[in-house]
Amino acid sequence: MRLLGKQEIEDIAIGAAVLGTGGGGDPYIGKLMTLQAIEEYGPIQLYSVDEIPDDAFVVSSGMMGAPTVMVEKVPSGHEAKLAFESLERFLGKKIFATFPIEAGGINSLLPLALAAQLGLPVVDVDGMGRAFPELQMVTFYLDGIAATPMVIADEKGNLTLLDTIDNLWAEKIARGATIQKGGSVMFAIYPMKGENLKRSGIHNILKLEEDIGRAIRLTKETHLDPVKEVLQLTNGFELFRGKVVDINRKTETGFARGTATMEGLGDYYGETLQIRFQNEHLIAKTQDRLLCVTPDLIAVLDAETGLPITTEGLRYGARTVVIGMPCHPKWRTPKGIETCGPGYFGYEVDYIPVEELVGKGVASK
Amino acid sequence: MRLLGKQEIEDIAIGAAVLGTGGGGDPYIGKLMTLQAIEEYGPIQLYSVDEIPDDAFVVSSGMMGAPTVMVEKVPSGHEAKLAFESLERFLGKKIFATFPIEAGGINSLLPLALAAQLGLPVVDVDGMGRAFPELQMVTFYLDGIAATPMVIADEKGNLTLLDTIDNLWAEKIARGATIQKGGSVMFAIYPMKGENLKRSGIHNILKLEEDIGRAIRLTKETHLDPVKEVLQLTNGFELFRGKVVDINRKTETGFARGTATMEGLGDYYGETLQIRFQNEHLIAKTQDRLLCVTPDLIAVLDAETGLPITTEGLRYGARTVVIGMPCHPKWRTPKGIETCGPGYFGYEVDYIPVEELVGKGVASK
Repeated sequence: MRLLGKQEIEDIAIGAAVLGTGGGGDPYIGKLMTLQAIEEYGPIQLYSVDEIPDDAFVVSSGMMGAPTVMVEKVPSGHEAKLAFESLERFLGKKIFATFPIEAGGINSLLPLALAAQLGLPVVDVDGMGRAFPELQMVTFYLDGIAATPMVIADEKGNLTLLDTIDNLWAEKIARGATIQKGGSVMFAIYPMKGENLKRSGIHNILKLEEDIGRAIRLTKETHLDPVKEVLQLTNGFELFRGKVVDINRKTETGFARGTATMEGLGDYYGETLQIRFQNEHLIAKTQDRLLCVTPDLIAVLDAETGLPITTEGLRYGARTVVIGMPCHPKWRTPKGIETCGPGYFGYEVDYIPVEELVGKGVASK
Repeated sequence: MRLLGKQEIEDIAIGAAVLGTGGGGDPYIGKLMTLQAIEEYGPIQLYSVDEIPDDAFVVSSGMMGAPTVMVEKVPSGHEAKLAFESLERFLGKKIFATFPIEAGGINSLLPLALAAQLGLPVVDVDGMGRAFPELQMVTFYLDGIAATPMVIADEKGNLTLLDTIDNLWAEKIARGATIQKGGSVMFAIYPMKGENLKRSGIHNILKLEEDIGRAIRLTKETHLDPVKEVLQLTNGFELFRGKVVDINRKTETGFARGTATMEGLGDYYGETLQIRFQNEHLIAKTQDRLLCVTPDLIAVLDAETGLPITTEGLRYGARTVVIGMPCHPKWRTPKGIETCGPGYFGYEVDYIPVEELVGKGVASK
């Protein structure tokens, strides 16, 4: 167990936004909520998965909906608590600890804010190793662990508890309720035993986020290249450097969908990059080359500071470096690709690992 | 307490469809389910409200969604049971009895089928004295009784438990979930104590339904006019006689909405009647006269047999008698009119009691 204070939260917020691949919600709101919770309740206890008893009852927490809505509709901080209490009441069990469902701007941090508020530990694990837009897109789903009973709570205090026949139905019904409730809600989801979290989760994800955030922060002093630091920590590849010339973004069926277009600079002069996103970046390609495809990670960094830019934060004229990072090996299985590969999102592209694309320069369709 | 056997169910089904004012779902499916339940589990115990202990825990049951969907998507009979069991588990209380939320084709009968299946009594009470399309349109709402905790269950076995800040939010969120789940679901709703049911419900509604159904059935033998029999039992008025010349019906946002048009026959020759409905008939008017307005009841009966016709059952050329019946006095209060008067449904018409409209012939807008 170690304690997380304010500096750790600042670093985690930045690293989470890198792994959040443009989505996962604005890290700023989650960070503010967590810093305020630490101010009020003291530092957060972070446990490694190995420190969690096998029979401990653990539950993930976070928000669901279009992050573009979340920006305008800041959560009250009490919804997640309401959701946890309601789940405990329904299951008649005390929750031992919480953990992030994903590594994304806001959903990496909300469990920390909740944990501080409830005096619970946080487990250093998630279910994606990145961010994804749908509830079944977790390694737990690949391993047959149920998303429900889950509870969603809106900022008004309305509670919805779901107990569904599978995780795809959980996503479908929860998404409908989220839209009905105004576009963004807090959830308590994937209740499970410690032993299942250990077996199925992606370990030490908060540590990786913190390492990335710290490396970017320290380049101000070390004068190292922040992008190189991130690539080293994530085994990633530089895909493109350029400036943003177009952003096409709309919020529909509870998601922020769109395309960002960048014109190449330096070595990339003359090339045009397109990034397609649905909350998260899903595909990066130029006119004639596919560069990186979901479930591998695509992040957009500020060319100068190395700080990650979310799809909402992307502005015309911004100078950026686009990087690709290999996803966790669990996503590269047939069920992993089926669950969140390009085909699931409607792209007629085969999944090819980023390290192969970078090596071979496969022609884009 | 008295027992309900197959003949009673047949009669109740017909009376419920009269009070269902065109909506409330096809009585045929509810009847079949109830008859089958009686076949399997024996007669149903019907209690008057006065026989229910003040502190008994009672819960309403029924279906939600467009009845046009229900016709194609017959419930498995287990959803309502699942919903009840889940509500008991959440609240940690045993349910003493169930009751219909409304007097409508299907929702009058589904609680009887469930009661037989679970060995529970049914209480002779409802929350509308008629049928209405939305969950907050009950006398319980007028009296400040919460709709939630409620559970909805689909035929696949997905469960959603709602705990909302008010009954309008219960309606809104449950409606969204219903559409997400395929357009029709079963619910367990308005959990309350016996004393509240006694204070707020509309008493002896199943008895009235049975009386209406029996009267219509017996006119085959007595050769009395079935329409007159219904008018006498409900203090109603004949509004129109004619044949159906147009039906405009669509299913949208979980409701069956539309307009039925009839041309007058006999005394009504030369007049054209329009009935507007949203699951239930809401307004009846001719070219120049308003005849009956929600929350008063508008029923369409077969001119020959007196049997009620639902909006789904309405066919071109059908010879009909349209009748108007005064609603329960609780609906004629300001909050009653606000909750389900013509303004709520978007009609720019003031509510005028049917007995005044019939007397004075107020000009239609």
